Amino acid sequence: MTTSTKEANSESILSDIAINAELADYSPVKGCMVIRPHGYAIWESIQKILDKMIKDTGHENAYFPLLVPESFLQKEAEHVEGFAPECAVVTQAGGKELNEKYVIRPTSETIINHMFSKWVGSYRDLPLKLNQWANVMRWEMRTRLFLRTSEFLWQEGHTCHSTHEEAKKEVMQMINVYKDLLENYLAVPVHIGEKTDSEKFAGALDTFTIEALMRDGKALQAGTSHDLGQNFAKAFDTTFTSQENKLDYVWQTSWGVSTRLIGAIIMGHNDEVGLILPPKIAPFQVVIIPILKKNMDNSLVLEKSKELKSQLEQLDIRVKLDDRTQISQGHKFNEYEQKGIPIRLVVGARDLENNQVEIHRRDIQSKEKGVPLENLDNRIKDLLDEIQNSLLNRALEFRNKRTKTVTSIEELDSVLNCEGGFARAMWNGDTELEKILKEKFSASIRCLPLEKELSEDTPCLFSGTISSENKEIMIAKAY
Amino acid sequence: MTTSTKEANSESILSDIAINAELADYSPVKGCMVIRPHGYAIWESIQKILDKMIKDTGHENAYFPLLVPESFLQKEAEHVEGFAPECAVVTQAGGKELNEKYVIRPTSETIINHMFSKWVGSYRDLPLKLNQWANVMRWEMRTRLFLRTSEFLWQEGHTCHSTHEEAKKEVMQMINVYKDLLENYLAVPVHIGEKTDSEKFAGALDTFTIEALMRDGKALQAGTSHDLGQNFAKAFDTTFTSQENKLDYVWQTSWGVSTRLIGAIIMGHNDEVGLILPPKIAPFQVVIIPILKKNMDNSLVLEKSKELKSQLEQLDIRVKLDDRTQISQGHKFNEYEQKGIPIRLVVGARDLENNQVEIHRRDIQSKEKGVPLENLDNRIKDLLDEIQNSLLNRALEFRNKRTKTVTSIEELDSVLNCEGGFARAMWNGDTELEKILKEKFSASIRCLPLEKELSEDTPCLFSGTISSENKEIMIAKAY
Repeated sequence: MTTSTKEANSESILSDIAINAELADYSPVKGCMVIRPHGYAIWESIQKILDKMIKDTGHENAYFPLLVPESFLQKEAEHVEGFAPECAVVTQAGGKELNEKYVIRPTSETIINHMFSKWVGSYRDLPLKLNQWANVMRWEMRTRLFLRTSEFLWQEGHTCHSTHEEAKKEVMQMINVYKDLLENYLAVPVHIGEKTDSEKFAGALDTFTIEALMRDGKALQAGTSHDLGQNFAKAFDTTFTSQENKLDYVWQTSWGVSTRLIGAIIMGHNDEVGLILPPKIAPFQVVIIPILKKNMDNSLVLEKSKELKSQLEQLDIRVKLDDRTQISQGHKFNEYEQKGIPIRLVVGARDLENNQVEIHRRDIQSKEKGVPLENLDNRIKDLLDEIQNSLLNRALEFRNKRTKTVTSIEELDSVLNCEGGFARAMWNGDTELEKILKEKFSASIRCLPLEKELSEDTPCLFSGTISSENKEIMIAKAY
Repeated sequence: MTTSTKEANSESILSDIAINAELADYSPVKGCMVIRPHGYAIWESIQKILDKMIKDTGHENAYFPLLVPESFLQKEAEHVEGFAPECAVVTQAGGKELNEKYVIRPTSETIINHMFSKWVGSYRDLPLKLNQWANVMRWEMRTRLFLRTSEFLWQEGHTCHSTHEEAKKEVMQMINVYKDLLENYLAVPVHIGEKTDSEKFAGALDTFTIEALMRDGKALQAGTSHDLGQNFAKAFDTTFTSQENKLDYVWQTSWGVSTRLIGAIIMGHNDEVGLILPPKIAPFQVVIIPILKKNMDNSLVLEKSKELKSQLEQLDIRVKLDDRTQISQGHKFNEYEQKGIPIRLVVGARDLENNQVEIHRRDIQSKEKGVPLENLDNRIKDLLDEIQNSLLNRALEFRNKRTKTVTSIEELDSVLNCEGGFARAMWNGDTELEKILKEKFSASIRCLPLEKELSEDTPCLFSGTISSENKEIMIAKAY
């Protein structure tokens, strides 16, 4: 398969799954999608888990205006350069041309700093640790459902600290919260790493990222956490009086993940049938399908199905009972397989006579007939754990297989253009490599991973030199 | 006090409370506010309760684009007339002038109908019952924190049905859900009623409203539920094939409440100290303040405070322990009183020697010393219920006192311009009355209440006639 067919193929996998699973639909607004109930329920699962993590680490939620005065964006030089070209601009309102234009927030550092400068006066007001759940807009030329849309939903954390050290700790704490979310709930393993200067957030001193590998061999930047230094504080005069009665700028961080995470689930777990949902974030983990016969008394089957549902719910398992009569059983099987529901329980009259049901496991598409009703609830609970672990392990294995060390551009070529995946290498820091990656390979340095695996005597893939100045990097094609 | 001083006074009550309780702050964007953590936490309480009610009545959440093509708004004649003057318009994006302008959604009937027309084909797809939590924007000339801001947060339900009868049932179901939320959680009593033609939603056949009375004697429209008939379905060609194989337009409803509800809490429950929060929606219901002495061993007081916290939490009571040392006790007392926290528990060393604490109740500003620790958790739980009921009863009493039957414009004048409140009256339907109300009294017909109290022989306050055609109405000045 050529690169361009591969590319087209991976695009169609994403859109086929998202549309068939009724996660999303195309909208009449350029680059924007509609998130349908099944997709939104996944987002609600993610929100519930992450919101608790954010609050447990001492942050509070707040809400800031959607519109940002255009002049605010211009106060931080790198920031405006990075974001202005992507902005949607409001020029009229209330039937009049506006004196000052507003941009729809592409991110909220500027407007939030305006408020911070009002609220922060002394070291007693610090640390100030806020988070916002909101929609943002970045006008994209080329969009893909969930992975790159002009409007997306996200959370953005914004914090102020009295020392750089404390801010740096916050940056690392939050990127680790994201890693926890991805690995232990979404079953998507990630590498934490630092971005190169050319890839960091516009206005940040330093950006940390979590990078995941999708089943099509591409990397996905799934979340970022930024050390903003005092850049925005200087632009917005966000100062505080220290305990020693000195005036200083606050040290800041910001960090975010978005509905892109649903794209990570789609492209991280799928097979030829469609989506596979990790149990911990599935809107419902078990679907019960009673076999309903026309012109027959189905009351026993229905009653037993309801009983099973409430038994499972007592173990905090999320269950849907589909007792629709106008939809065929085969249609239902197909619908929930495409939607990625982890377990299907089929309840039929004949099975019930023997106190049995049928279990179908979505992740490996396996069916088990004649499963005893006795202790079924605990068995299902264990099975959900097993599926969750199995999905993570499968993704880990996949990633490990597709991560190779390269010491030359030729070796790199073979990794990027055959199976795809991560190329691990040493790099002397010459930014010329980043240009070549972009132009020749449509690839990039995804990160300088925190967990290093190469020995110091691995030569730079670009210059061939061995030096203690060389940095370990991970290269991949990315979304 | 003259009307204009009263007006100014009620405005300053709202903003003083909102600012001092740190619910919100003014933003640099015209007419938009910042919702601070304490205000946002109240919104989260409301969301949690209402989201469950919405799901329990069979609706699913989804998300539609923020931007609406300008041409969509124009497809429904009344709708565009009502909303176009308030729209914020995006004319540039991605560095270019747009061929088609977008408005920031003032409400989403049009864009959602575009999608509905794609999704609905047959009676099997109905009813379709969706809800969206989102931000919306209506450019307002005169804004007030929470009660009227250019951007606000809300939920908007949108449903499609195969018959008008079913749609009407949905409209009534949801206005009753809102009444339940307001009365049994926010402790704000409301009247359900129908809007007059001139006050109904732009594009609806009929609008039902819940109207509350604030402590300044003004009415507040706190939520609405609309029977859209087939108006939007016709504009967007949202059709379905019936069971009898006939093509028909769907019957639709929409309904919403917003962050205005926080305004209803502020203006519905307050005293000269500030905000009073009903326990059921208070972000935390109890604040524990240990009395910390300088240069002393405070470990026992702190330990007991933590123990109390976890005891209360076991009864699902939301508790905050404020053990900050750099803030004085008096400052803390004042802060939580202004923030409206229902109960304050003060834990001091001397009290502990006698196994006692001090309880302060915010709603009536009463203090009880020497409360035994024994069974304190259950006592607090009961007290929270008592406060919740007491706030509702107080508001009911207040409203009943300020609701008077009027049979002439003179009597109306005295109600509206003395104490304020609702004037209940009969009306012959002449729209001239609505003009007089607006021009002479800055008042309006708030609704035709569902629960009628007047006898049929009450004369029309406008014409003096007695007729079975007369309708019962409630008049008030409103936000």
